Amino acid sequence: MKYIILVFALLMISVTTYAQKLSSSNSELELSFKLKSDGTPTYSLNYKGKEVISESKLGLELVNDDKSLLDGFQIKEITSSWADETWKPVWGEQSEIRNHYKEMAVTLEQPEENRHIILRFRLFDDGLGFRYEFPQQKNLVYFVIKEEHTEFAMTGDHTAFWIPGDYDSQEYDYTTSKLSEINELFDKALSHNASQEQFSKTGVQTSLMMKTNGGIYINLHEAALKEYSLMNLNLDEDSLTFKSWLTPDAIGNKGYLQAPAVSPWRTIMVSDDATDILASNMNLNLNEPNKLEDTSWIKPIKYMGVWWEMITGKSSWNYTDELPSVKLGETDFSKAKPNQKHAANTEHVKDYIDFASKHGFDALLVEGWNEGWEDWFGHSKDYVFDFVTPYPDFDVEEIQKYAASKNIEMMMHHETSGAIRNYERHLDTAYQFMNKYGYTSVKSGYVGDIIPRGEHHYGQWAINHYLYAVKKAADYKIMVNAHEAVRPTGLRRTYPNMIGNESARGTEFQAFGGSKPNHVTILPFTRLIGGPMDYTPGIFEMDISKLNPDNNSHVNATIANQLALYVTMYSPLQMAADLPENYEHFMDAFQFIKDVAIDWDESHYLEAEPGEYITVARKAKGKPDWFVGNVNGNSPRSTKLKLDFLEKGKNYEATIYADAKDAHYKTNPQAYKISTKKVTSKSTLKLKSAAGGGFAINIIQK
Amino acid sequence: MKYIILVFALLMISVTTYAQKLSSSNSELELSFKLKSDGTPTYSLNYKGKEVISESKLGLELVNDDKSLLDGFQIKEITSSWADETWKPVWGEQSEIRNHYKEMAVTLEQPEENRHIILRFRLFDDGLGFRYEFPQQKNLVYFVIKEEHTEFAMTGDHTAFWIPGDYDSQEYDYTTSKLSEINELFDKALSHNASQEQFSKTGVQTSLMMKTNGGIYINLHEAALKEYSLMNLNLDEDSLTFKSWLTPDAIGNKGYLQAPAVSPWRTIMVSDDATDILASNMNLNLNEPNKLEDTSWIKPIKYMGVWWEMITGKSSWNYTDELPSVKLGETDFSKAKPNQKHAANTEHVKDYIDFASKHGFDALLVEGWNEGWEDWFGHSKDYVFDFVTPYPDFDVEEIQKYAASKNIEMMMHHETSGAIRNYERHLDTAYQFMNKYGYTSVKSGYVGDIIPRGEHHYGQWAINHYLYAVKKAADYKIMVNAHEAVRPTGLRRTYPNMIGNESARGTEFQAFGGSKPNHVTILPFTRLIGGPMDYTPGIFEMDISKLNPDNNSHVNATIANQLALYVTMYSPLQMAADLPENYEHFMDAFQFIKDVAIDWDESHYLEAEPGEYITVARKAKGKPDWFVGNVNGNSPRSTKLKLDFLEKGKNYEATIYADAKDAHYKTNPQAYKISTKKVTSKSTLKLKSAAGGGFAINIIQK
Repeated sequence: MKYIILVFALLMISVTTYAQKLSSSNSELELSFKLKSDGTPTYSLNYKGKEVISESKLGLELVNDDKSLLDGFQIKEITSSWADETWKPVWGEQSEIRNHYKEMAVTLEQPEENRHIILRFRLFDDGLGFRYEFPQQKNLVYFVIKEEHTEFAMTGDHTAFWIPGDYDSQEYDYTTSKLSEINELFDKALSHNASQEQFSKTGVQTSLMMKTNGGIYINLHEAALKEYSLMNLNLDEDSLTFKSWLTPDAIGNKGYLQAPAVSPWRTIMVSDDATDILASNMNLNLNEPNKLEDTSWIKPIKYMGVWWEMITGKSSWNYTDELPSVKLGETDFSKAKPNQKHAANTEHVKDYIDFASKHGFDALLVEGWNEGWEDWFGHSKDYVFDFVTPYPDFDVEEIQKYAASKNIEMMMHHETSGAIRNYERHLDTAYQFMNKYGYTSVKSGYVGDIIPRGEHHYGQWAINHYLYAVKKAADYKIMVNAHEAVRPTGLRRTYPNMIGNESARGTEFQAFGGSKPNHVTILPFTRLIGGPMDYTPGIFEMDISKLNPDNNSHVNATIANQLALYVTMYSPLQMAADLPENYEHFMDAFQFIKDVAIDWDESHYLEAEPGEYITVARKAKGKPDWFVGNVNGNSPRSTKLKLDFLEKGKNYEATIYADAKDAHYKTNPQAYKISTKKVTSKSTLKLKSAAGGGFAINIIQK
Repeated sequence: MKYIILVFALLMISVTTYAQKLSSSNSELELSFKLKSDGTPTYSLNYKGKEVISESKLGLELVNDDKSLLDGFQIKEITSSWADETWKPVWGEQSEIRNHYKEMAVTLEQPEENRHIILRFRLFDDGLGFRYEFPQQKNLVYFVIKEEHTEFAMTGDHTAFWIPGDYDSQEYDYTTSKLSEINELFDKALSHNASQEQFSKTGVQTSLMMKTNGGIYINLHEAALKEYSLMNLNLDEDSLTFKSWLTPDAIGNKGYLQAPAVSPWRTIMVSDDATDILASNMNLNLNEPNKLEDTSWIKPIKYMGVWWEMITGKSSWNYTDELPSVKLGETDFSKAKPNQKHAANTEHVKDYIDFASKHGFDALLVEGWNEGWEDWFGHSKDYVFDFVTPYPDFDVEEIQKYAASKNIEMMMHHETSGAIRNYERHLDTAYQFMNKYGYTSVKSGYVGDIIPRGEHHYGQWAINHYLYAVKKAADYKIMVNAHEAVRPTGLRRTYPNMIGNESARGTEFQAFGGSKPNHVTILPFTRLIGGPMDYTPGIFEMDISKLNPDNNSHVNATIANQLALYVTMYSPLQMAADLPENYEHFMDAFQFIKDVAIDWDESHYLEAEPGEYITVARKAKGKPDWFVGNVNGNSPRSTKLKLDFLEKGKNYEATIYADAKDAHYKTNPQAYKISTKKVTSKSTLKLKSAAGGGFAINIIQK
């Protein structure tokens, strides 16, 4: 008998070198780390006793390094730790966030190369995060990544909510399909974009949302992406394994590192309840604490903008149509013939200021205010804007005074056109200009291919730039909302002046042909996992031809849906994007936008199904009032809304903005009804949402 | 008879569409412009009645443009003009420069594309310059150059003095060979460099110096290179035609232009007298006049440096040897162990200041003063220097005070390591630092591959950067001497704070294995055509092992040759590059370096043969004194030096520093003799130069 046991033990050792497990605090998740016999590190993940991630490899392939960091490892050390702390974000979905995890750090060494790395795993109740660490050491100093080889082995042909893997754009409508169908549906999923480059017919972007046949929700993403290249995922169709696919630079390399260094965290969220995915704070918790000493100047912003009229084609960004091109500093705009469609003119801006001020908004964005819009797009133009020279009809000083007199802050616009060096050359003077004229926040844009040519929006080069611009903005006490930049990955914890990003298919695409009506029921599961989105909702006129007869686009949403977005699409920056005159047609509905809070003490995701519906309730920061929002997908749906999140024993008045009975995003989008009701924590509301509809509720404590 | 004549005329028209000629003022050069029947523009050049450039095509190939700008042209208009003016450079070989040319501007249009360009030709007595112009117009706005197709058709298998065509380096020894031998000698001509990339086995760089079998000298170069990519030349061996080969960017494109725009001038100098090539001002004259309003702060500089001891390996740039790498702002140098070889320490710098001050120098360069030298090279490191943080042993303020007390200006050093974005991010603070601590000039460097990766030292991207740094420096009243940057092409006329460049194989290579002894008899014909070179001469100790036992390099020059360089290698920046102790061994010879002027009223190139010898006499600016220099190639040689450039009727005393009778660059380099002589304009001196030798003469008016 002894003999048999001994043999068994030896067999065990020879098959697997080592296996180490880590369980989450609530015991639902179990991580297993193993080294294969050839020294390849692997991990797997179980949820409630069942495998959700099968054995998946880890490692990195290096340039000019035959050995790479793929195999040949031995375990040098394993340390365990845990943390349970609470911290307060400057702004957010909650006023207080709990960071509670168990950690395992595995030091792996390659004896022949005499170098080592650390795999650090952090297991939360709602997911796993892990990253590669490269400690300072003699034999690993400078290295270039050829490819990262992190796997996420799926256990079945899950349903995925995906967009095509791309080095430059996320502005795609989502496709819902089985993993095995991605390949055949890939081309159809691609829509044209100003800057885009795919790499594989089975490539997808993160965060990737999935649902297994057994009803388990899985989300793959990354956190704390800096000084590294963005990770896309490429599906191996045979094994149904996703493999990391980093973004290359101009010469095909995927990252330049100098030890000591760390990779971003790769994150896997798992739950049998979709609301857990939305409610998770894992991404934020994996980021470093706030580095800005003074954050008193950072505030959420509710704003309007001279913008939608250009997006719809009703007006133009450019001042004149008669110049074939512009040479900044040489072109004399005072001699050019105005095209009479230039929206960013002093009088028109004042009208917007009046409206925004009257209705209690914080700020006004103005696009098209500065010289250069005549030829900014599609020419790979380097010196495209200087960010400080207004058109002849935009009086910076007068607008500054007027806005200040109306208690409106001006929001700056810096369209970089992807010309990163040009932007950096002008960054200090551009920010100084903002300080001088009272612009407290800036919406920046990176439309078009990146210059230096050959670089990508999601490569290490551009990612370094975006953070550089945010850090420098902090020196000037400026808040940044970067569009077309890399998707956020929680860096807002470290740099809370990073108040917004676009980096997904936003409301503007409703004017470019429309987005799928269930788009907004997917985005929070995908794009918003790493940070808020400046989705710019609040469109009340769905028929764009009414703004511009040449534009037949239709906004695929109801008004109630648009109102709900202020609650369901979390963002500290919220825009009422439509034109004042369109709001004036529906001032009762507009009231919700005026009332809705933009900063929160608590957020409760009440029900959610990716692609179908999301209902969330939030408590306004420092107030007893609540807001509830529901966005609905392609089919009409009923909700039984229990208000048990309200404070017990208190009385509230709920104002409910809902779809009218016959509302429909396409045929009858502007039909809504407003009702009021007295409620308490014991109340239940029965609500119906139209296709592409929803509801928004303002619950005031009495 | 009439009938026959008519037919002849028709034949003439059908063979060539058009031919237009232009003669130089002295009638020696004749340009002929012709459009071929397919509308391809061509030119040819005659010198004293004989063809020197055969029919050569002109044109540009564009990206995404099937037609391109290659053919299909018709002549729309030809205008002629001429200019004869004099202008004064801020500093130079002459205090006054005559700009005298005849010009022909040919407007060519492509009727089908409805667009036009202008070919502008300027014919000087010593050469031809021409460029492409792209006027503002509707159908030619933004365009991308795939390749420029400018030809220079040689009339025979000339002798050429060439270096391999390269996108990143000019630091090669010259090869003298027939054009037909370039291919076979190419690999041998290549030496290793920190950053280099060739494109063709028959590729060469400009300026290209040639001599025909008939004794005609031809030089090909470019002038006013900005907002464009550098032109190399590729030889078509069958036709012996050089074709322009521009430098690509990271994705292979060769230039991004926006009309109105111009190409650089392509220049062809021709003479049967080699000294005309050296004396020509055509390159400067083709550049735009000075744009800096105030030039009072721009002055030639005679300097020494804490530099040669590092180049030879005697000392180090880096402070410590114990760190595998540096992270600026994180690495604590005060805790690092000094390597005891760091030359840029306060006391040592003060010793240099003492010496430089005692001997009347203007400035002191110090390299290795700032954090980051431990790992600056070979790692493609982005954040490599911050240009403002000194090592613990370099006391900026104390050195500033000490230098000021000794009437020495400090010369800053900015090694960028090719990390252009990093340099630009720090440029303002770096220049402000210079202003604060009294550094009036900066030697900048671009050692190693350019970052952004994929770009080249000579591509449009980097060329834009070099000028950006010079223009910004002018705002701070700072003079710039850029090493490893693009070779100069006369922009110093427009931006006279651009006081130096290296961009060729300088004196440092004498410590890296040595350069050919006749190297300095070629450089003025090649590298110096576009502008001065910071050659950093003045080495007195030729046996480098005496400075560093591990370095067996030998400086292939005699002391007399080194002295002569201050006259023959024109530069407003002149360094006495050796160590003070080496000068102290030969203080009598050092006297010449102390005395030699660095700015001139007149320069007379008395005799020259590329690869063999150059003798030049220059009159010090604002003084009656003259300096003569001769550098000699591989064989000993005698010169009969007529002093007829001296002012008639005046008496002078000449101090002659010559090779001793048995001097030789290799076996007896330090043997020299000094003699004095009374001379007048009627005097003739008979002098002998050793192999790799020369002579230097200081002629003071009595």
